[in-house]
Amino acid sequence: MRNLLSIVSWVWFYCSWTTHGEVFTSIGQMTDLIHTEKELVQSLREYIRAEEYKLAAVKNWASKLDALTQVSTSDPEGYLAHPVNAYKLMKRLNTEWPELESLVLQNPSDGFVANMSVHRQYFPDAEDQTGAAKALMRLQDTYQLDSEAFSKGKLPGVHSNAELTVDDCFDMGKTAYNDADYYHAVLWFQQSLKQLDGGEEAVVSKAEILDYLSYSVYQ
Amino acid sequence: MRNLLSIVSWVWFYCSWTTHGEVFTSIGQMTDLIHTEKELVQSLREYIRAEEYKLAAVKNWASKLDALTQVSTSDPEGYLAHPVNAYKLMKRLNTEWPELESLVLQNPSDGFVANMSVHRQYFPDAEDQTGAAKALMRLQDTYQLDSEAFSKGKLPGVHSNAELTVDDCFDMGKTAYNDADYYHAVLWFQQSLKQLDGGEEAVVSKAEILDYLSYSVYQ
Repeated sequence: MRNLLSIVSWVWFYCSWTTHGEVFTSIGQMTDLIHTEKELVQSLREYIRAEEYKLAAVKNWASKLDALTQVSTSDPEGYLAHPVNAYKLMKRLNTEWPELESLVLQNPSDGFVANMSVHRQYFPDAEDQTGAAKALMRLQDTYQLDSEAFSKGKLPGVHSNAELTVDDCFDMGKTAYNDADYYHAVLWFQQSLKQLDGGEEAVVSKAEILDYLSYSVYQ
Repeated sequence: MRNLLSIVSWVWFYCSWTTHGEVFTSIGQMTDLIHTEKELVQSLREYIRAEEYKLAAVKNWASKLDALTQVSTSDPEGYLAHPVNAYKLMKRLNTEWPELESLVLQNPSDGFVANMSVHRQYFPDAEDQTGAAKALMRLQDTYQLDSEAFSKGKLPGVHSNAELTVDDCFDMGKTAYNDADYYHAVLWFQQSLKQLDGGEEAVVSKAEILDYLSYSVYQ
């Protein structure tokens, strides 16, 4: 059973979030989102299978045509001297290439995109995400946790591998920054930089983090 | 040097075709098409590379989410008890899933499709393809070749591996059939059937060939 501290931190997180009136306050709603995400992953897997199937067909055609054009371009007149070759060239250009083009233009993502559309209305929005980030920072203050401990998921009484990436830390920093909360902004940009320097991969660049960090420091 | 018979058969093919006024009568035009085809294959290879790159990114995300949702769905409340997990779920649904959807909706085929559009105006059309098929049949009559020899590319004086597939033979048959030339139609449907029974792979089904063949036989 989870211990008391865990429950306290959880309740604190959700309560401090609720005070700002965000939508995703009930554990039930959050649990629904977890199941939605699972469904989206399955739908994505189906899309991947369809795309791989399509790509295999295109690659098969490309290999066949690679071999063919190597022969035909090495001696075009010799190639065309055979009437069967001339007929087959006609057929390829009139029928088969346009068929291949239709295949290439297909995007077998309909199922996945439809699934996204159905669920998107229940997704948290930017305000919810900002609310959750701010709730994390309030929790950080309450337990006087440094950003590194937080980023590594080391919360009192919670045993889990929940970690924040470089990009997560940078987004935490930006949330504080946009709220003119430069104290937390500096903490999180520094943590982001530390993890990036530690060799973690990230979408955000070092220059961008430094840019935000230097501005925050001088406020 | 190609021998006289080869030249004669080639000239016969192109002349008998010319008499029907088709466009692709000069060896120069046909040679241009060969080089166009080579260019299209290169363009297709670029599309394949881009599609593989996109698919790798989508698969990478799917693998990451597979692992994540296995943990989150096995104990949703335990998962959400960690505030960092709750924040990251918000972020994924508000930011990352929509980004993935945009990636999925991309079809990196623009270059290939543009290349097809540029060249399509010079492609042979259905009439050209039919003209080439009929020219082959006239050649067949002149040299009194059976369809099998023809299909295997065995033309007098021509040494090449130009072969007709089951589908090619079926299309030859259909050209004759549509022209009410049931004599050649039967020959080519039979050849198509023979190659299919021999184990060759084909798009056309046995039932479809038999359907056309039986109708042609009773004319």
